[in-house]
Amino acid sequence: MGPISEIDNDSRQAALDRQLNLTKPPGSLGRLEGIAIELSAMQGTITPGADRVEIAVFAGDHGVAAEGVSVFPQVVTTEMVKNFIRGGAAISVMSRQLGAGLTVVNAGTVAPDVFDSPVVDRPVGQGTGNIATEPAMTKLQCLEALKLGAEIVDGYDPQTQVTIGGDMGIANTTSATALAAGLGVADPASLVGPGTGLDNDGVAHKLSVVERALVRAGPDSEPLRLLGELGGFEIVALAGYFIRAAQRGFTILVDGFICSAAALAACSINSGVRQWMLFSHVSAEPGHRLIMDSMQAEPLLDLGMRLGEGSGAAIALPLLRSACALQNQMATFAEAGVSEGD
Amino acid sequence: MGPISEIDNDSRQAALDRQLNLTKPPGSLGRLEGIAIELSAMQGTITPGADRVEIAVFAGDHGVAAEGVSVFPQVVTTEMVKNFIRGGAAISVMSRQLGAGLTVVNAGTVAPDVFDSPVVDRPVGQGTGNIATEPAMTKLQCLEALKLGAEIVDGYDPQTQVTIGGDMGIANTTSATALAAGLGVADPASLVGPGTGLDNDGVAHKLSVVERALVRAGPDSEPLRLLGELGGFEIVALAGYFIRAAQRGFTILVDGFICSAAALAACSINSGVRQWMLFSHVSAEPGHRLIMDSMQAEPLLDLGMRLGEGSGAAIALPLLRSACALQNQMATFAEAGVSEGD
Repeated sequence: MGPISEIDNDSRQAALDRQLNLTKPPGSLGRLEGIAIELSAMQGTITPGADRVEIAVFAGDHGVAAEGVSVFPQVVTTEMVKNFIRGGAAISVMSRQLGAGLTVVNAGTVAPDVFDSPVVDRPVGQGTGNIATEPAMTKLQCLEALKLGAEIVDGYDPQTQVTIGGDMGIANTTSATALAAGLGVADPASLVGPGTGLDNDGVAHKLSVVERALVRAGPDSEPLRLLGELGGFEIVALAGYFIRAAQRGFTILVDGFICSAAALAACSINSGVRQWMLFSHVSAEPGHRLIMDSMQAEPLLDLGMRLGEGSGAAIALPLLRSACALQNQMATFAEAGVSEGD
Repeated sequence: MGPISEIDNDSRQAALDRQLNLTKPPGSLGRLEGIAIELSAMQGTITPGADRVEIAVFAGDHGVAAEGVSVFPQVVTTEMVKNFIRGGAAISVMSRQLGAGLTVVNAGTVAPDVFDSPVVDRPVGQGTGNIATEPAMTKLQCLEALKLGAEIVDGYDPQTQVTIGGDMGIANTTSATALAAGLGVADPASLVGPGTGLDNDGVAHKLSVVERALVRAGPDSEPLRLLGELGGFEIVALAGYFIRAAQRGFTILVDGFICSAAALAACSINSGVRQWMLFSHVSAEPGHRLIMDSMQAEPLLDLGMRLGEGSGAAIALPLLRSACALQNQMATFAEAGVSEGD
């Protein structure tokens, strides 16, 4: 893998200067100013954009589903992959709405048959092992999944500005919770949550499953080993996707709980990835706020979303576009003949 | 004035039913589900939209600017009106970005000359009186400003879906603070804030000015009288704009501090207006959260914005569009052949 792409601090400073000269009280666009400035630094220009967007949704199945940690049956992972490409899922609707590219990747569902095009059908395995009792995957599979995520980014046009990763995988909040705990975000009891809709008893059972997985995997916090022990094929592929996006100099707009666990793993593998990330929303899944805090991330939205698929990032994308339009198109005080404040 | 338009509760229920059948865990789109459901109820359809949008920015000057309550000189109100129509202001950029109509209204600046087209040049007076020492306007002027706001809505196409009001007026956070306090939101000390950038001494001075205005205006909380005593021409026009939007059955997407004070006044005049309102963002101006709480409003965004002009509402509009697209275009479990949860 190559080095992480450099951030352009001169463009950051130039964008900051421009923000102070636009016809508004300094700072009055709030977080939008910071977003435009960060995009300027990433893109090396004071007129950044968020128009050329690529979304990739990675699907994988989880052996730990056998422990009864989800209210949905495992077959839903495969059914949703078909829904993605037929256009009926939330991320399908949003990618059309945004004019973004959408790539759907079978990173390792239990589906016995091949998926129709345009699914990128590259299963690393037919679902992971049950992390409560065995490693999720071999080290070789882990490397293969990382490579799969990277290769999706390799296929993107060099002019791509923003990348969004998304996840689909029944029981994957269990894996993500275990991974986040293993990476030191917080104890499992603080991180565990209802996922797609567990009741209190279900959450308590899920916690016991996560704790068994952590005991089994052992206290080592080496990120690559933990990914293989506790991750999912889609989670590892997402980590590879994020790392390669940072290597190619594409902004990473991070989605919710699953993607953030993958983002944390990616940053644990290579800390330089962090500077290419913006954070879209804080999920209703309670552990997400803890992952965000551990990454010093300030998500833009807090709308109680908890769908996955990259949907929260897609919902937040127009904020980036607005931030860019304002920085690029607003007049300065001098241009508009508007008096400045004291 | 006619009656407030009716909300369609059958469409609300039908939209709620549809949300439960879309291919996602129930509730997993968070606030977006509620937005789409409310828009369904307002528009009387389960396939609502937020595409046809009208923005009106009302500008007015405030005699209380003479008390030194703003860091910007009063001439900026007039200069910004010109910036709005030349396309260089934040709301100009956003209206283009959104494909929304933009109407700029001189509701009562101190500008001695007429504004060029397309400004709607209808000054109710050349700035208001200094509320610290005299009423802002006469009762007749107050009614005229209400009528001005209503007439802007009267000019809108009946197919309009969403209306956004915006404000421009140096020193208008002082008027809005006094109005909100007069309408019972909270005491002035809790409501007062830095506006476009006062320091602590400036805020303390502004508080004393607001307190003088409230003592002068007296304890009466009759909303129409308070509007005339403490309001601004743009604030009163915004109240009229909101009332007429509710009469015509257009969704009102409320902006920040100034617009929310006007929205509160509108709801105080006619409580039925409230049900046509959605709330876009909570401003950095500290009193805004208190106005939102007093209206049981849950703003969608919290990005530290404090620009006015309707800019926060414009920034939030894509959330409405996304909410509609998801409700309208996602497949149901049955349509997609996806299994439901327990």
